Amino acid sequence: MDIYNDLSRIIDPRIILNKTEEKIPFKNDASYISGSEPYLIVMPENVNDVSKVLKYCNDNNINVVPRSGGTSLTGSSVVYHDGIVIDMLKMNKIKNLSLEDRYVVAEPGVRLDDLNIYLSKYNFFYPPDPASSLAATVGGTLSTNAGGLRAVRYGTTKEWVLGLEIVLPDGSIIRTGEYTLKRSAGYDLTALFLGSEGTLGIITSAVLKIAPLPEKVSRIMAFFKTIDDVGIAVSRIKKSGITPLISEFLDRTSMEAVKNSVNLNIPENMNYMLILDIDSDLESIDRKSGDAIKIIKEITDKIEVTTDKKRMDEIYRARKGLYSSLLLNRENDRQIVVIGDVVFPASELPGALHEAENLIKKYNLKVPLFGHIGDGNLHANIITDADEKSLEKVHRFQIELADIAIKHNGSVSAEHGIGLEKNDLLYKEYRDRNNLKALELMREIKNTIDKNNIMNRGKIFYET
Amino acid sequence: MDIYNDLSRIIDPRIILNKTEEKIPFKNDASYISGSEPYLIVMPENVNDVSKVLKYCNDNNINVVPRSGGTSLTGSSVVYHDGIVIDMLKMNKIKNLSLEDRYVVAEPGVRLDDLNIYLSKYNFFYPPDPASSLAATVGGTLSTNAGGLRAVRYGTTKEWVLGLEIVLPDGSIIRTGEYTLKRSAGYDLTALFLGSEGTLGIITSAVLKIAPLPEKVSRIMAFFKTIDDVGIAVSRIKKSGITPLISEFLDRTSMEAVKNSVNLNIPENMNYMLILDIDSDLESIDRKSGDAIKIIKEITDKIEVTTDKKRMDEIYRARKGLYSSLLLNRENDRQIVVIGDVVFPASELPGALHEAENLIKKYNLKVPLFGHIGDGNLHANIITDADEKSLEKVHRFQIELADIAIKHNGSVSAEHGIGLEKNDLLYKEYRDRNNLKALELMREIKNTIDKNNIMNRGKIFYET
Repeated sequence: MDIYNDLSRIIDPRIILNKTEEKIPFKNDASYISGSEPYLIVMPENVNDVSKVLKYCNDNNINVVPRSGGTSLTGSSVVYHDGIVIDMLKMNKIKNLSLEDRYVVAEPGVRLDDLNIYLSKYNFFYPPDPASSLAATVGGTLSTNAGGLRAVRYGTTKEWVLGLEIVLPDGSIIRTGEYTLKRSAGYDLTALFLGSEGTLGIITSAVLKIAPLPEKVSRIMAFFKTIDDVGIAVSRIKKSGITPLISEFLDRTSMEAVKNSVNLNIPENMNYMLILDIDSDLESIDRKSGDAIKIIKEITDKIEVTTDKKRMDEIYRARKGLYSSLLLNRENDRQIVVIGDVVFPASELPGALHEAENLIKKYNLKVPLFGHIGDGNLHANIITDADEKSLEKVHRFQIELADIAIKHNGSVSAEHGIGLEKNDLLYKEYRDRNNLKALELMREIKNTIDKNNIMNRGKIFYET
Repeated sequence: MDIYNDLSRIIDPRIILNKTEEKIPFKNDASYISGSEPYLIVMPENVNDVSKVLKYCNDNNINVVPRSGGTSLTGSSVVYHDGIVIDMLKMNKIKNLSLEDRYVVAEPGVRLDDLNIYLSKYNFFYPPDPASSLAATVGGTLSTNAGGLRAVRYGTTKEWVLGLEIVLPDGSIIRTGEYTLKRSAGYDLTALFLGSEGTLGIITSAVLKIAPLPEKVSRIMAFFKTIDDVGIAVSRIKKSGITPLISEFLDRTSMEAVKNSVNLNIPENMNYMLILDIDSDLESIDRKSGDAIKIIKEITDKIEVTTDKKRMDEIYRARKGLYSSLLLNRENDRQIVVIGDVVFPASELPGALHEAENLIKKYNLKVPLFGHIGDGNLHANIITDADEKSLEKVHRFQIELADIAIKHNGSVSAEHGIGLEKNDLLYKEYRDRNNLKALELMREIKNTIDKNNIMNRGKIFYET
């Protein structure tokens, strides 16, 4: 079988990448995990291209890896064993905007920041906002149910999708949901495909909900001595009824990593920082941010408040660039950064954060901590050598961190998905909760939709 | 096979209703559709009761109809051919509240108004708010993905559920989602069960998201001459970036039906009413409701504004009681009221409402109109005799109304589900959109989860 020749006959060969130097970059995504070199890469220009390629692959049992921004942190977008890559970056049109109906129609290759630059002209925005939004795409973030900074207020991606156009593994094209907020007409297939990491089909268009931009935002930066205090502050703020727009947390190493670039003045003996955005109507910003400050002042007096747009953008970019900053923090470029992604309910933060910190001490690993702490999402990021012994230690650490997440009613994956990295942690979570039947049901649904098991094999589920 | 005897051996016979006079009320729900008399009714007290009964029914191919409030308007909760009813009303505990985490755990038999009375003590609420909230339950509203008055602002039920405990048809118990806002750990089974109308399993517990109550609400009541004006007003308000808390619409007949009970002063020559709630921070209510009033004043000057709590409650109850009021409007008690439930995107309202009104004239039917017009949801409610000829005419009207909904990118069912009433309209919608494959996929998923097809047969899908 010559896949290139076959595909060249059914789609325009110009959209096939087949040279070794073209294929090598696709062995990696933003994670530390490398995959196989794909047989070739197809870059579809429309839904029919996708349909033809999937039908061919399904008929010939060829594995398919969907990809767009390649910003996966769990190896979701690399080839597990063998297969072709379908790269959706050429399908990057913003097709249709309706302010009345609060939706924008976008193709999967649209980058989130580009989408929001477009929407901001109308005073609207698309809330899901992963730190990688400069490069992350609509397609990728739908596929992992991305969360990001604003989830504490606006929820995750799945709350922002009205409908999808999807190519199923056999090449047939379906639409789910459509253009209205309300619809009670059969099962919610839209939600089934969100967060499915490309294991069920390929999204070729999405009707995304949009929201009016907040009228006014104030940013509070508070510094704390202990991680317990951070957890207590977040928990009390949420209990009071305040829902911040963002609620980010950085430990000392993370602060140091961005300190110079944003001129961050870290008070002495302060090891943790909380960045809290409070939004309001035009008239009420002082009162509403005052309410939050009052709660924080019971715990720390090291507080900086700003409503200066330039300063706020600077801090936001620094926070979003933390992964890059940590990569610069490696002792040498053979070291890797394993981005962690657990989540606990906010009420469990005081205890859970304390236990996480003790675990890091126990393992004597270099683990800078940051995260979207308002929704309980902790990124415990391990800077480590990549030899077998080190990785084995990292893995033991991850299992014990998963124990903490599971014990505190949380999850082993908040927003990065399972990919190739966390299959064992996923099974652990369901097994520890005596809930393996739910995972079996997912597998049965996968088998129903992707009968030949060609879609993104090895991701989410173990391969048997 | 003696079902009563068999079940009496595996569950406490006290929770089985088996006398004819006990069974007769279960032949009906709130719709005009009657079902068969169930073999018997089980009223489980815990998840194990549900599990045992489902296992028995699955092993013996006995059809099962889940039910709780019985407020379905499409016959979702009556028996299609034969079978038992599992009535969830005894499982009505509010089990667990976490303000920090913004969730409450409730059993399916909890009535929505009871839940919100409980939450209001903490200054929080559960946003989904169907007009039937006094009687409608958590279980029923999850099963139809209920929308209601506040959906224009807060979305439908599926945006307010973190996790579920579900008994599958074979009696096994799974949990989906869990307690955190973020979670990217496999497929979103939660969403799959929401809106599935009891055709996939029985929900025995739900982790529901809650939100802080709005600080301030102002109610605008505006009166219009033509239905076109109503559509234009709603469309312009939404385009301006204003998202009302509720946005309800009543035609002349609907206004007349509640006029006396709430002392409604209907201006002369005004045939339509819009009820608009604007919420804001404490400080900004005048400006924000002023913005909406300014847009409305370009179209009509018949406007009443109130922030009086008592007056607002009165109007709200009257709106919620419209179905009951229309029942009193029948010429005789052999007449029925067929509640319609189509939806269009808000931008399509001006044209779609006009066409709907022309259709009513063409059929010369008595069809009072009201609806949650801010999200495009129109209830066209037919007061009709129940003889075969009349019902046939009603059905032709519904098909033509469905044509309008489909043409305008809407749907044949906004929030009441498909039940026994709309199978043909559901198939029509998917067929007209050349999307039958999506419906086939739903059927395949149904077959995967409910292998013996015992769960709520005849609902959503045609029975073959």
